[in-house]
Amino acid sequence: MSQNSRADIHNSTGFLASAHAMADAAALETIRFFRQNPAIDDKSKDPGNTGPQRDFDPVTAADKAAETAIRRIVTENFPNHGMHGEELGRLNPDARHCWVVDPIDGTAAYILGWPMWGTLIGLTEDGNPVLGMMDQPFTRERFWTTDTQTLARGHEGTERVLKTRSCEDISNAILTTTHPDFFATTEQKSAFLRVSGAAKTTRYGGDCYAYAMLASGFCDLIVESGLNAYDIAALIPIVEKAGGIITTWSGDPATYGGDVVASGDPRVHAAALDIINSK
Amino acid sequence: MSQNSRADIHNSTGFLASAHAMADAAALETIRFFRQNPAIDDKSKDPGNTGPQRDFDPVTAADKAAETAIRRIVTENFPNHGMHGEELGRLNPDARHCWVVDPIDGTAAYILGWPMWGTLIGLTEDGNPVLGMMDQPFTRERFWTTDTQTLARGHEGTERVLKTRSCEDISNAILTTTHPDFFATTEQKSAFLRVSGAAKTTRYGGDCYAYAMLASGFCDLIVESGLNAYDIAALIPIVEKAGGIITTWSGDPATYGGDVVASGDPRVHAAALDIINSK
Repeated sequence: MSQNSRADIHNSTGFLASAHAMADAAALETIRFFRQNPAIDDKSKDPGNTGPQRDFDPVTAADKAAETAIRRIVTENFPNHGMHGEELGRLNPDARHCWVVDPIDGTAAYILGWPMWGTLIGLTEDGNPVLGMMDQPFTRERFWTTDTQTLARGHEGTERVLKTRSCEDISNAILTTTHPDFFATTEQKSAFLRVSGAAKTTRYGGDCYAYAMLASGFCDLIVESGLNAYDIAALIPIVEKAGGIITTWSGDPATYGGDVVASGDPRVHAAALDIINSK
Repeated sequence: MSQNSRADIHNSTGFLASAHAMADAAALETIRFFRQNPAIDDKSKDPGNTGPQRDFDPVTAADKAAETAIRRIVTENFPNHGMHGEELGRLNPDARHCWVVDPIDGTAAYILGWPMWGTLIGLTEDGNPVLGMMDQPFTRERFWTTDTQTLARGHEGTERVLKTRSCEDISNAILTTTHPDFFATTEQKSAFLRVSGAAKTTRYGGDCYAYAMLASGFCDLIVESGLNAYDIAALIPIVEKAGGIITTWSGDPATYGGDVVASGDPRVHAAALDIINSK
């Protein structure tokens, strides 16, 4: 894709303004249901989901309401665009532009009342992620990309440019991943443990928030497995335009998810790929 | 300890007002240093700690500055009280009242830019925790106890009473712990894995925030190992006065840390102790 084409996307088409509108609309729904204990407040009950395990189902009412709100903006503003959401499936699957959306990435954190979740809104053009947004409405933080930069806004309202930090050697890297059990096969577990053994320290529990902090220069390496496209498409531009690198474990584009490595410094990324692909 | 003695502590002595002042003073320091990347901002450098691994040392400048700020209030308001902090050691170790303080619980989260850390301020009387406070100044949330209740205040400023939720059976329990590697011995690891296998789901990465969410009714069970007194003393009243139960793995008071089980429902607590202590 040419630089001009990307500039068009952000400056002339209203794509970024629409992404902000989508995040605003989703936030109303996610915050409305956040920390509403289903045991004491009927508002968070999902009528289709009964029984004692109801409150552990990640497909919450909030998830669906937020994705519905985003989908409404997509279909109103860009009737020819595609959409690929976690909850409601696909719209216009053959469209050149596709909004790839996870209304609540980090549902386990959301259910626990932890602020480590976010709304992911990505836009792909011919299959390439060209715009990314991660919104955390409880902490009132938003992370997004322009043509050339990753920006962040906190609750104080000021915007700042994000930049990954340098890390010369993987032995100095802080590594994060969401959950050790998300590495499903023995080979995946073993590969992760080799990287974890090479890194300085490992922290669990990140979800999308970890990628925003990697883009912000507070983390060096994220290794994950079994992601869906909607888990990662929005985060790719956020990491890349802050100076980082993100691919699959085999070094291919991570647009469709799968096993992913993200790093703020290409040297750590290369070292992690080497370790993953050595036996 | 009699009910009267506890009422005295909160209503007549200024202990709670002082705890709020301590949390306010600590927050100025912890927020000042939070997300100041040492690679690009000298403010967060700890002069006693040089070299490439400096920014991973949990004993940050923020930790020390926050504990110093709290200690100043303790010595000014209660010159005869003791204090046991993570960074600066002990004051008046034989005093009847002791402030047990961790200026930044969750330093790994703090270093990563994640909001899953907090300032812990506990007060013990004759060795029993009688007042607890957990402050998260980035999300502007505070959790604390009065004579009879656990209260919380969010960034919107309204106070609410916290109540743990009921959970009949451990098979429906959401379990959290901070890090799988914090279980140091084979026996501890094995005990944790048995509980994790019995619970519905397990989530890592909580630190003190997990206890505040347990008190709020969003989590059923926390199992941890190797805690210090300052990691837990402030959290005991927060859990107990919200209706929960918290002990060591052998069922003793958790005041001095060690291996800890906290639950919102006594039935889940009993089941977890049974599983831990069965082989």
